[in-house]
Amino acid sequence: MRVVRTVQELRAACEAARAGGQTVGFVPTMGALHAGHLALVDRARSECGWTVVSIFVNPTQFGPHEDLASYPRPIEDDLRACEDAGVDLVFHPDPAEMYPRPPATSVHVSGLTDRMEGAVRPGHFDGVCLVVTKLLNAVGACRAYFGRKDAQQLAVVARMVADLDMPVEIVPCETVREPDGLALSSRNAYLSPEDRRRAPVLYEALSEVRERIEAGEREAARAIEAGLKVLHGEEVDYLDVVDPDTFEPVELVERAVVVCGAVRLGGTRLIDNVTAIGGKGRR
Amino acid sequence: MRVVRTVQELRAACEAARAGGQTVGFVPTMGALHAGHLALVDRARSECGWTVVSIFVNPTQFGPHEDLASYPRPIEDDLRACEDAGVDLVFHPDPAEMYPRPPATSVHVSGLTDRMEGAVRPGHFDGVCLVVTKLLNAVGACRAYFGRKDAQQLAVVARMVADLDMPVEIVPCETVREPDGLALSSRNAYLSPEDRRRAPVLYEALSEVRERIEAGEREAARAIEAGLKVLHGEEVDYLDVVDPDTFEPVELVERAVVVCGAVRLGGTRLIDNVTAIGGKGRR
Repeated sequence: MRVVRTVQELRAACEAARAGGQTVGFVPTMGALHAGHLALVDRARSECGWTVVSIFVNPTQFGPHEDLASYPRPIEDDLRACEDAGVDLVFHPDPAEMYPRPPATSVHVSGLTDRMEGAVRPGHFDGVCLVVTKLLNAVGACRAYFGRKDAQQLAVVARMVADLDMPVEIVPCETVREPDGLALSSRNAYLSPEDRRRAPVLYEALSEVRERIEAGEREAARAIEAGLKVLHGEEVDYLDVVDPDTFEPVELVERAVVVCGAVRLGGTRLIDNVTAIGGKGRR
Repeated sequence: MRVVRTVQELRAACEAARAGGQTVGFVPTMGALHAGHLALVDRARSECGWTVVSIFVNPTQFGPHEDLASYPRPIEDDLRACEDAGVDLVFHPDPAEMYPRPPATSVHVSGLTDRMEGAVRPGHFDGVCLVVTKLLNAVGACRAYFGRKDAQQLAVVARMVADLDMPVEIVPCETVREPDGLALSSRNAYLSPEDRRRAPVLYEALSEVRERIEAGEREAARAIEAGLKVLHGEEVDYLDVVDPDTFEPVELVERAVVVCGAVRLGGTRLIDNVTAIGGKGRR
């Protein structure tokens, strides 16, 4: 496994792989790798001849009061995990390599970013779009792998890639969960033992909403109400039933929807989502 | 020469050319081709094994009261000119092919777009950035050729490509002029015979500013004043001396600057620019 720190080396290595006839698979990460990331790597390796992982805690997607400074950066563990997983190339740049000067260029996806994470974290998706565009342009990947845990991010990236005719296939991958249902996330490491015990409540609430919908509940508000009962006493950022294409709230559930939630446990913010098949989709 | 109308065909043809070891040169145009465009094609052919020209009057870069509907579209002449010039592939999409739905994604370059064309034509550069990004992504060109006549556009595109790590070299090409100095432009066709006779006055004014600067004038305002005298009686949008990197106005000329102007003759808007070497650069 090779580790490179500059865009130029990344580009040259990926060009050489493509020139050698390899299909290039790309897994962008912020490091602190867990089994969810490694599932993306496995999927990439099963579909592509050559797999690149980027490890970069991207400052432009953090708000001024967010956890940029404290975000975990266990780079030695991460490199070992990539090596063990059979990654071919790791790109691990410094911020100054990715942003040698303040970028004048912004990439914005409207509509999809108005709610939920976009509303709670202003500027977050612009930061995601910028870094994903830069990485995809440098890697020239055939396929890029994103986890469904960040469902809104996945939708934003997919829309950006389609709108801009980027030559890459975005591959969504299922969320990996702990045995108790908690979605894997690098931020789970922040949880105190007590908060960690309570953390599965988010997935329980999402599952409650899904069950209501799949049992025939058509009014999203009533299904959400049942989910909020599960979250009673927790600090809820949002619990929404949204359209999988537009991420706009759904009032009457008539097909597949995404049930999305965000809660704060102690100082830690957790997000998760599940798909629920409502209306005629159930038949 | 092959002509394709869809992004899919464009992408496949360019991929095949690259896979065959060709260097792909790309000349994006809005058609109504003149000797300036053909100079871009000649440069592309001299540097690349395979040359693509796009002919697309991009609606997103026109303002609501601009000349989108009347912009000349002599496609038969354009295709003949491309064939004669040795172009390998022409991409000539319909607007619905480029924009199958209203794009949710925007690409914006800040700062560089604040003045001159950006101020006179709100949204113009966002439209340019969007279509250039889409075309570059679909073509996967090694080099893309832009004329210096649209100096601000060239600077905006170059900045976007750098900020987004796009894998393409932007090649600036000198402005081609009529014998009387008028910069070639598809919009020159709009000029009445009388306006056409007056049209070289823009280049004369720019040249006057350049001469003052290159004769040692350091105060941009005084050089511009001399240029405005040449334009006396004309409808001037702007006559500015700007920094070649930031396109911000220069007050004291101490190195190379760009002298940019825009005038309206009858209903036709003409832009042009020249580089002037001031200050220590003259030595």
